[in-house]
Amino acid sequence: MSYTLPLNYLQEVFSTEKTKRYFFETKDFFDSLKPEQGGILPKMSRKNGSWTIKNSKKIFENDFFKVVEDDVLDPDEKESKYATIDLKPGVAVLPIDDDGFVYITRQFRYAIGRFNLEAIAGTVEGEDALTAAKREAKEELGIEADEWLNIGRIEAVTSITNSHADLYLAQKLKFSKPETEGTEELELVKLPLAGAHERVMQGEITHAETCVLVLKAVARK
Amino acid sequence: MSYTLPLNYLQEVFSTEKTKRYFFETKDFFDSLKPEQGGILPKMSRKNGSWTIKNSKKIFENDFFKVVEDDVLDPDEKESKYATIDLKPGVAVLPIDDDGFVYITRQFRYAIGRFNLEAIAGTVEGEDALTAAKREAKEELGIEADEWLNIGRIEAVTSITNSHADLYLAQKLKFSKPETEGTEELELVKLPLAGAHERVMQGEITHAETCVLVLKAVARK
Repeated sequence: MSYTLPLNYLQEVFSTEKTKRYFFETKDFFDSLKPEQGGILPKMSRKNGSWTIKNSKKIFENDFFKVVEDDVLDPDEKESKYATIDLKPGVAVLPIDDDGFVYITRQFRYAIGRFNLEAIAGTVEGEDALTAAKREAKEELGIEADEWLNIGRIEAVTSITNSHADLYLAQKLKFSKPETEGTEELELVKLPLAGAHERVMQGEITHAETCVLVLKAVARK
Repeated sequence: MSYTLPLNYLQEVFSTEKTKRYFFETKDFFDSLKPEQGGILPKMSRKNGSWTIKNSKKIFENDFFKVVEDDVLDPDEKESKYATIDLKPGVAVLPIDDDGFVYITRQFRYAIGRFNLEAIAGTVEGEDALTAAKREAKEELGIEADEWLNIGRIEAVTSITNSHADLYLAQKLKFSKPETEGTEELELVKLPLAGAHERVMQGEITHAETCVLVLKAVARK
């Protein structure tokens, strides 16, 4: 995903009033300027809100995230450094069957070093978010669905990470064999939506994407 | 927070069956082994679920997060690299007054490059989570409260990030002057809980901590 834009358009976007407007109105466009999207990272000093970014240095990059450290002038014009993490966009899916059961996973999560109860979740791999959601549901739990509903996006730790997940409820389900990768240690957990909700309310399910999926699924009823 | 344990205890913990049990039963203890807690990072090869970590290299560290890249054998015994991000533990607070209004913020968030509607949020600075929650509420919005309720923890992108936020509802509020730092551009937004809930349900509020706070606050009623 790479954007090519004429330079004057770019300058217009980075001028103050316009920038404000674009921040609010066209997040997608702003996203295209973020380095992780393969977008434009201008060499010239530029504004980020009331911060001035004088220089950006890539610290680390792999298939899943990128760490960039900026030399900045903070809103008080003081020199400082600001490091941020751009994560690959994500999706999460909560399948709900006709009898009100939901299908989640119990899987080992490397970064937290333990097994966790989580909705189907994965990253968007050069496709649209819905396609990624459908792919992950099929791969992880062998679930296909006739009805897909986008119930919003979540972003966590927005001061430091540029990371979002688009959330989907899947209904009218069909089940087949999962296509789990070798490195995924994953069990299917089937439970009533009300039971999942109780676990979220009790703080037993902590996975942010799953909490929001379950809470919104119940609130919609 | 630093733990000193006899070596044989450590070996016991890293042996397979025991490890499994500890993963499930004592997350706090396992957390103490994580580098970001000032814990023990053994030089010897060790297990992380079905992964074997042969070596760990710190890529980057600042006051807010740390990136570590591990040389691993994946569950299929294939050599690979696995990079994770440890973020400083966080807190988020939703103050609700006696008339059912909630107090959130509209603030510029550097990593996403735009203003965002978010509950009070911050990091735990060598204190317990409740103390951090109280401090952040006072600093950001000048809010103190007589009733504090922990409504659980959230964790996001658990495959890559070790990051959690403890969530609090604050009630019986008292208002004074905020103690915002110079670099925080922050506005108070007061709205009925039902209004906040609608914005979450519509996908207009995307901040994960805020979504879960608002959804749980409504679900508790």
